[in-house]
Order: sequence, then structure tokens, then C-alpha cells
Amino acid sequence: MNYTKEKEIDGVLQRDFAIEVGGETVPCVIWLPKDASGSRTLIVMGHGGSQHKKTPGIRSRAVEYAQRFGWATIAADAPGHGDRITREEAERMAQEVGARVRGEAAGPAFDSDRMKQMAERGQKAVVEWKAMLDAVQALDEVGNDKGVGYWGVSMGTAFGVPFVAAEPRIDCAIFGLAGLREGANYMQEAAASITIPVEFVFQWEDAVAPREAGIALFNAFASKEKSMHINPGGHLDIPDFERDAWTAFLCRHLARD
Amino acid sequence: MNYTKEKEIDGVLQRDFAIEVGGETVPCVIWLPKDASGSRTLIVMGHGGSQHKKTPGIRSRAVEYAQRFGWATIAADAPGHGDRITREEAERMAQEVGARVRGEAAGPAFDSDRMKQMAERGQKAVVEWKAMLDAVQALDEVGNDKGVGYWGVSMGTAFGVPFVAAEPRIDCAIFGLAGLREGANYMQEAAASITIPVEFVFQWEDAVAPREAGIALFNAFASKEKSMHINPGGHLDIPDFERDAWTAFLCRHLARD
Repeated sequence: MNYTKEKEIDGVLQRDFAIEVGGETVPCVIWLPKDASGSRTLIVMGHGGSQHKKTPGIRSRAVEYAQRFGWATIAADAPGHGDRITREEAERMAQEVGARVRGEAAGPAFDSDRMKQMAERGQKAVVEWKAMLDAVQALDEVGNDKGVGYWGVSMGTAFGVPFVAAEPRIDCAIFGLAGLREGANYMQEAAASITIPVEFVFQWEDAVAPREAGIALFNAFASKEKSMHINPGGHLDIPDFERDAWTAFLCRHLARD
Repeated sequence: MNYTKEKEIDGVLQRDFAIEVGGETVPCVIWLPKDASGSRTLIVMGHGGSQHKKTPGIRSRAVEYAQRFGWATIAADAPGHGDRITREEAERMAQEVGARVRGEAAGPAFDSDRMKQMAERGQKAVVEWKAMLDAVQALDEVGNDKGVGYWGVSMGTAFGVPFVAAEPRIDCAIFGLAGLREGANYMQEAAASITIPVEFVFQWEDAVAPREAGIALFNAFASKEKSMHINPGGHLDIPDFERDAWTAFLCRHLARD
């Protein structure tokens, strides 16, 4: 694996790399302790719509996990996101998505064109993230004998549920800010095939994920252990303390190392 | 305050005492570190239907909080419970409540007679628990200058919501395993007057608290910070990890000491 860029953040290495999947270059990043040697717990993170692989919420937790627990974290720019589009395209998308999640956009949050695009990108993401997992598990400082967790909310759930359903290497998953929609039967089927422990965070006044849709997705998971955390507020208002709950959840399930 | 009984449990004192309220003797208990001196964080716990003030779930957490954080915890036998009834009455009630929460009882979980009895006992409990709080805050080793948290699920919520609504000394509250029912408008009004942080734990297949009723109670709290934790399973199946979530919640809100 060739690193295209490397940066140190408070004792943690942030290394950019790229993989080739289906003729496309997929920009990825891994964070791990500077002096990492030997296998370790791995977290795969999926960013939200209009965000990118190093979005602050992902990067800050990746750094924290490396510092506190010695874990590695990986993320990729999703199809149509990050370094896979121009800066102008990213800015336009951020405005569109921002208006939608704040409830300021006209029309439905997800029309059929957008549903179709999400489904297609999700299928690509599943293949790409599997390849990313293959690549980093081949590293001595990651390996494949320790636990793997998944975290992703919003688009990170829309893509993450099919990914986790298709990926037996994931041991536990945090999802949220998403629901089951008419016309997305593949999501229901994917959720119904997930049996690993799941924590599902949900915002009660989310402009893009109605309550009933969120509860339907929570209900669809086949996991014996699944927790839904409902908090007041909109799509961008997840309380800070849920971050601690995610850490506790990941520690509980990946602490066998 | 006169202690009627005292026992040491791994460095923690468990002291029984009684208060007189409205001509009735209310059996109470306080747990605190053996060498406690000076004021400290206080937790008020309300037990479930058919249980008593030293029910294992309460006692074990009271001991843990004293050991780990130096907190004091108090609980009272609710009206019609614990040492306020005979052993035979307690056993009969435990069987009745057990059948109800396991979904094995015939008829509705709460008929109008039972609703009326719960409302009356709840009113008494509010007065008694206020008096209990007065009594222990007069102790040097508790005082009234530190935070006070409330924990109570099931009947501990049915009585706890009116108590917390009426008690400005409570800084944060954990409720659960209960819902808003037709004919219990006082619960809705009490919940609507609660603005302190609330954590609300709920079981998704609870035979005595339907989903819609639980969500309605969660919605009724006026608190800006409120979290609902939904888990699969019945009334008796709260996962162990929720205990850690309660501890984290209490620490977050009472750590100003």
C-alpha cells in the first residue's frame, strides 16, 4: 500500500492511500498510533451526505480511539463525494444537503431520482469498502485477528446497512439518522440479515428521517442486542454525550483484544 | 435521625431509618461510605411494583455509587410495599405483578381500580419522599449543597414522575418501563412540568407498557435534554449495559461536586 500523504496529529498518524475498484480510484485514509506494530481493533467509518473521509466528526474520533485504545480507523470518500468530485461540486452539494437536513428544501427530502442514486452509490460503496478492508487487514499493524466495528449515520447508514449486511468481518455497528423508506426494500432486506449488536441513534425532529421510518429501520434489524437512542432536535443536533455512548458500545464489543 | 438497623457492605454503610408522615411510619434506608463526612451527591431511588427499598437492583447500585464516587443513596418502602405489609401480602403481590409483567395475567395490565390505587399511592409517595429528602439533607454527611439525582423505573416512574415534578431539589432523573395511559392525565401534566435532563429506558416488548404509551410519556417531558433508550425484550429484560448508561448519565449531571 502506498501512502499518498502522511500527517501526524498528537501522536496519531493520518495516512492517505488509494485503492482501485472497478476502474475507479477510491481515496481512503487510515489513522493509527504513530508507533503501531502488531494487529489491532479496527473501526470502519462511513461519512454523511456531502461530507468526506476526513470530516471533523470522523477525524476527531479516529484520533481519540488511536490515542486512548490504540485502535486503527479507516474511511473512504463515498462515490460522488470528497476528492472524487471538484471543490465546486462539493460546495454545491453541501448547500443542497444542508438545506434538506435543516428542512429548508422544497419538495420531498428523497425523491425517486435521489433514491435511485443513493441505492446505486450504496452498491458501489459496499464493494469499495470491502476492498478497503482487504487492503488494511493486509497491513502488519492492522491484521485480521482483532475485532472490527462500523460507525456511520445518515448516508453512513444508508450505505452502511448494506455494507454490514454483506460483510461478515464486522462485529458490531453504530447506525442512525436514517429510516426505512417506501421503495427501498433492499434496506429492509439488508437490515433483516444483520444479527450483530447494533446501536441506533435517532433525532426526533429530523427533517429527512421521519419517526416512523426510523422506528421501522430499528425494528428491521435481526440483532438480539439492539438499542435505539432517541434525542430531541434535528438531523445535525445529536447530543455530544452520544459520542461517549458510541465509545462505550465499541469498547464493550471490541474489548476482547 | 435514629437508625433502626445498620450493616456494613464492603466499606459501605447500609442504615435503616424511619420517618413519620401523615400518621404512618415510612421505612427508609440510606447507603453511604463508612467514613463519610461532609456533604455529598445524593441519589433517590424508587423501587418497582411488588419490590422493596433494598431490592437487589437498588442495593447493588447504591453500594457501587458509594464505593466509586462517595455518593449517598436513599430509598423508601412505597405505600403498600416492603415492611409496610406482611410477608404473605408481599409474596402474593410478587406473584400477581410477576404474572402481569410476563404477560401471563388475564385481563388488562391496568384496570381502573388498579389505576386509581396507583394514583393514590403515588400521591402518598410524593409526600413521603419529600420528607425523606428533608430528613437526610439535615445530616452533615449528606447536606443540601450538592446535586440530587432520581432513578426509578416501572412503579418507580409511575410514582417518580409526580415526585420529580413536585420536587425542585432533583437535578436529573432516570425513568422507564412505563407509559402514558388513558385516565392518567396527572402523569401527562407532571411530565410536562419536568424540565431537568431525563434518561428514559424502555423495553420494546413490554407486556405492561405498550410502545405508543412509552413514546407518549417520552414526548410529554418538557426537558430540553431527554434520551429514550429502546431495547428488545420484556419488562424484566433491561440489558446490563443500561446500568452503565445510568451511571454515565448521573456522573455527567452530578459531577459538579
